[in-house]
Amino acid sequence: MIKIGILGGGQLGYMFLQNALQYPCEISILDPAVDAPCAPHAHHFVQGDFKDYDTVVKFGKNLDAIGIEIEHVNVEALRYLKSIGKKVVPDPEALAIIQDKGVQKAFYTQNNIPTAPYFELDNWEDFKSKSDVNYPIFQKSKKDGYDGKGVQFIKSEADFNKLLQSPSIFETPADLDREIAVVTVADHLGNIVTYPTVEFVINEEYNLLDYLLIPSSLSKDVTDRAEEIARDVVKALNSPGVFAVEMFLNKDQSIWVNETASRVHNSGHSTIEGAYSSQFDQMLRTLMELPLGSTKLFTTSAMVNLIGAEGETGPAEIENVDTLLQIPGTFLHWYAKAITKPGRKMGHVTLVNDDIEQLKQNIKQVNETIRVVAKK
Amino acid sequence: MIKIGILGGGQLGYMFLQNALQYPCEISILDPAVDAPCAPHAHHFVQGDFKDYDTVVKFGKNLDAIGIEIEHVNVEALRYLKSIGKKVVPDPEALAIIQDKGVQKAFYTQNNIPTAPYFELDNWEDFKSKSDVNYPIFQKSKKDGYDGKGVQFIKSEADFNKLLQSPSIFETPADLDREIAVVTVADHLGNIVTYPTVEFVINEEYNLLDYLLIPSSLSKDVTDRAEEIARDVVKALNSPGVFAVEMFLNKDQSIWVNETASRVHNSGHSTIEGAYSSQFDQMLRTLMELPLGSTKLFTTSAMVNLIGAEGETGPAEIENVDTLLQIPGTFLHWYAKAITKPGRKMGHVTLVNDDIEQLKQNIKQVNETIRVVAKK
Repeated sequence: MIKIGILGGGQLGYMFLQNALQYPCEISILDPAVDAPCAPHAHHFVQGDFKDYDTVVKFGKNLDAIGIEIEHVNVEALRYLKSIGKKVVPDPEALAIIQDKGVQKAFYTQNNIPTAPYFELDNWEDFKSKSDVNYPIFQKSKKDGYDGKGVQFIKSEADFNKLLQSPSIFETPADLDREIAVVTVADHLGNIVTYPTVEFVINEEYNLLDYLLIPSSLSKDVTDRAEEIARDVVKALNSPGVFAVEMFLNKDQSIWVNETASRVHNSGHSTIEGAYSSQFDQMLRTLMELPLGSTKLFTTSAMVNLIGAEGETGPAEIENVDTLLQIPGTFLHWYAKAITKPGRKMGHVTLVNDDIEQLKQNIKQVNETIRVVAKK
Repeated sequence: MIKIGILGGGQLGYMFLQNALQYPCEISILDPAVDAPCAPHAHHFVQGDFKDYDTVVKFGKNLDAIGIEIEHVNVEALRYLKSIGKKVVPDPEALAIIQDKGVQKAFYTQNNIPTAPYFELDNWEDFKSKSDVNYPIFQKSKKDGYDGKGVQFIKSEADFNKLLQSPSIFETPADLDREIAVVTVADHLGNIVTYPTVEFVINEEYNLLDYLLIPSSLSKDVTDRAEEIARDVVKALNSPGVFAVEMFLNKDQSIWVNETASRVHNSGHSTIEGAYSSQFDQMLRTLMELPLGSTKLFTTSAMVNLIGAEGETGPAEIENVDTLLQIPGTFLHWYAKAITKPGRKMGHVTLVNDDIEQLKQNIKQVNETIRVVAKK
């Protein structure tokens, strides 16, 4: 029985675990939080810091394969585990590229992957004296950026006081039509498969992400190019694993790679219901060195994040589940986090429907129905 | 957070748990085996005998809802738990009907449900002196029959030495065209939904079950009648829960109910991949009193049991998983049982394919590929 270890025990590990239980394998989870969602459900749970070299080595050395559900883990420890014969997915060298936005941007440039023009500054204060800046510009912290953290929008010199005080890249904003992503999977033999392109649909009233749609509503020309770019990225990374290549589709229909996640990703969640093999199933297959699953879709699906409501902090509770599940083709994924905070990802809802107009109506209804609050 | 308890921690509880984790609930499992498949994965695992009154009452009294994944549990304890306000699914009275084949047959007769002619004898020895028996005839033990156990085929008086020495029913054999089943779900409000009819396809060479097919290849007339009968059974049982109504389709195309399972069932396994909501999802919904899920199918699917190979007893191992998963549209469910024995259900494979001829070829390939053996 293959022994698999996962660094991180949050919602991604949780959905991985739900699927992995049906395979002949034994799962250990490492997470610093004793109440991590995975803690009660894995074969073995180890409380510890996945950023710490010794902790990760100790965790991995009696296992066969080590994967991640979060990227900010100790790469040196993974390099060591690989050197002693452990299967590590993704490859530590791929992870090292992804972890540092400067290295990641250089990687795209070296491999002729289209990406936004940028420059990097190890000393952020040098930005102030730089004479050739075209505003507005995005500052992105090289390390530890996550879910919009570590990103600053600099409109002009008047925003100098907002500058992040860390080594950064400075990037030209896209002339954005919309954001898209392609979840891409590579096995240990170098076989690569892609899911159809995912489209991030924005709520125009609030200018916020409304839902993710797969397959996207975009032309075959665009999705073919997007999927080819995603393949190129993953081929160049030269690593097995699940990757989400996030891209900007510019108004002139050119595509820039924004960033790549070297793990299962929010943009692939609705593959659980919508696809033959989900991204979580593929993650397990890459760890067990099994043949990749089919990325074919059963149906069109959409994914809506469940975010902790404003002004609500405390023991989490979800309102109107009953009403939610009366909406045809809805599936709830509650992430089993004890505490809700404003903006925290607490779960998601997948909706399936072959009729896109009906799907949109159902999404609207989901958004009007469900709320994550603190228990009174 | 609703607290749910399940009596039994085998493969049915295991697949229930995989799905239930995505809902806001907390799952406790009661099973006598400390190495039951569910033991490491539930929120709480209690080792104990679900046939024992005190054990079941103690297990259930601090929970909100109690379900089953095995039928041979203490009904008296469930009656008590219901009387103190616990939600019990299925209703203890429905379970009491199902547990005793004599009571179950009388229930069909009283409710005008078509079933094979039969008589019952509390003293099995009376059979020998009965003068009006039409041979051949099936003897079925009233209690504790399970998976073909407790059933004896009596061809003539020469088989008297084979008689089961227990209170029994004696049933006229069907003039069998094929076996079918309809998985049927009822909620606490009396709403009833059915999945499409499942067909048991027999391997004619070996005269053994080859695979289950959903939807079946049968005519709409037959499946409409089967689904109506299944509804009638569940309506008469007057209980929420998931039920599998197993039926004989006779050569004259009449239908007889063979028996009803008052829980998720082998014949519904491929609803995990093939249907919007699986039977395990419905089980959770009935326990949480959520709206029933959609029984609509994404695609045609088949289910092949993985049975421990002849002559192999010991720590279980599955051969050729790699080859198996190269067959398009295959999904493995390994039940995480430590020990394999000849004939023991160790897992199953679901196959999906809209092309029925291709599906049959793939099933053949699965049957030729996979083997469950004891570790050498």
